[in-house]
Amino acid sequence: MTRAESYEPTARTTPTRARDRAAYDHETVHAILDAGYVCHLGFVRDGSPVVLPTLYGRVGDRLYLHGSTGSRPLRMAGAAPDPGLEVCVTVTHVDGLVLARSAFHHSINYRSVVVHGTAHQVTDEEEKTAALDALVDHVLPGRAADSRPGNAKELAATSVIRLGLREASAKIRTGGPNDEPEDLGLPYWSGVLPVAPVYGAPIPSDDLAPGTPEPAYLSAR
Amino acid sequence: MTRAESYEPTARTTPTRARDRAAYDHETVHAILDAGYVCHLGFVRDGSPVVLPTLYGRVGDRLYLHGSTGSRPLRMAGAAPDPGLEVCVTVTHVDGLVLARSAFHHSINYRSVVVHGTAHQVTDEEEKTAALDALVDHVLPGRAADSRPGNAKELAATSVIRLGLREASAKIRTGGPNDEPEDLGLPYWSGVLPVAPVYGAPIPSDDLAPGTPEPAYLSAR
Repeated sequence: MTRAESYEPTARTTPTRARDRAAYDHETVHAILDAGYVCHLGFVRDGSPVVLPTLYGRVGDRLYLHGSTGSRPLRMAGAAPDPGLEVCVTVTHVDGLVLARSAFHHSINYRSVVVHGTAHQVTDEEEKTAALDALVDHVLPGRAADSRPGNAKELAATSVIRLGLREASAKIRTGGPNDEPEDLGLPYWSGVLPVAPVYGAPIPSDDLAPGTPEPAYLSAR
Repeated sequence: MTRAESYEPTARTTPTRARDRAAYDHETVHAILDAGYVCHLGFVRDGSPVVLPTLYGRVGDRLYLHGSTGSRPLRMAGAAPDPGLEVCVTVTHVDGLVLARSAFHHSINYRSVVVHGTAHQVTDEEEKTAALDALVDHVLPGRAADSRPGNAKELAATSVIRLGLREASAKIRTGGPNDEPEDLGLPYWSGVLPVAPVYGAPIPSDDLAPGTPEPAYLSAR
């Protein structure tokens, strides 16, 4: 994959403001998607917008979304013959609080990806298994291979939808505040307060067999 | 405010699954909203769903959303006479990765709030100023009073929409994995990996006047 490969911008993936923050190349879009595991899934129900957080994973140019918080959209996507469900999937990472001298120029540093498209229910068992592995590995890389795989009953009880990455865009803000020149002398502290998700010490289950080793991928987080 | 005060559940704020995780009381809903500053704003444009991350603040039973990433919805909400824009606003905090012995029972611990309603553009200058203060103070409590307030030109250049908290619900998952009894003897580590946003050392602007003290509210983060 070369950086030259890009998603084609469309009217709805072209921001009305701050266009210099937009990116469409696969490398940037995939990196932002791969850095997360919770997306916000938007769809329209009875004419009204609905936004639900749910888990996702990426496999190549496909996003897979889990049914745990989205059983309604998943049912909608799965009606036979599956007409698909129009969705917007957004992933956002907050990297810093941008503190300007002026209230107006306060901002945040972030990386986000917005994907538009039509999602379809995954019915093929092999694809579903691979999708669920990707979901688990997004949450914790290496974990899918180190857990009991789903059985037929569990697979049947799990809904997964697939969304092709075609209409996708990234938006990124980095750097310090953009204060007005006449504000630079004001006595307010200005700069960036970095923020990132930090993982704490693992809490074993009460019923974990004594002596069960803590896997390396846990400490890697 | 007493814990007894609650938002009335509606069809769309009643989850189809895991209803025991849902909560409607003001205290729970407000606490989740107050713990964050980035929401995902969903609306319908040309019949299609759109989900954008944006900053928000809460003042009493009103949410205020910033225009920085949402100029399209803000324009839509602001058409005169303002018919309002139907939105869904979702705030999600991830608290832990829940690692079960089985891939199927993997989950995350989280707190989320979903608000449905019609948003209106804020035109009253006093309300707008208070809303922007709330937005800045959500990002960093105490900061609004310690920055240069917006002037008339900046206020005019900023769009804020208001969403009443009426149809709102929280969803919370806590605790360890719910493994199947027959899986408890499997050799996989199980438990919870806690996660939380952690703030790093503040990075002063290059042009910050030497000796500008670091405000206490920065270190409090």
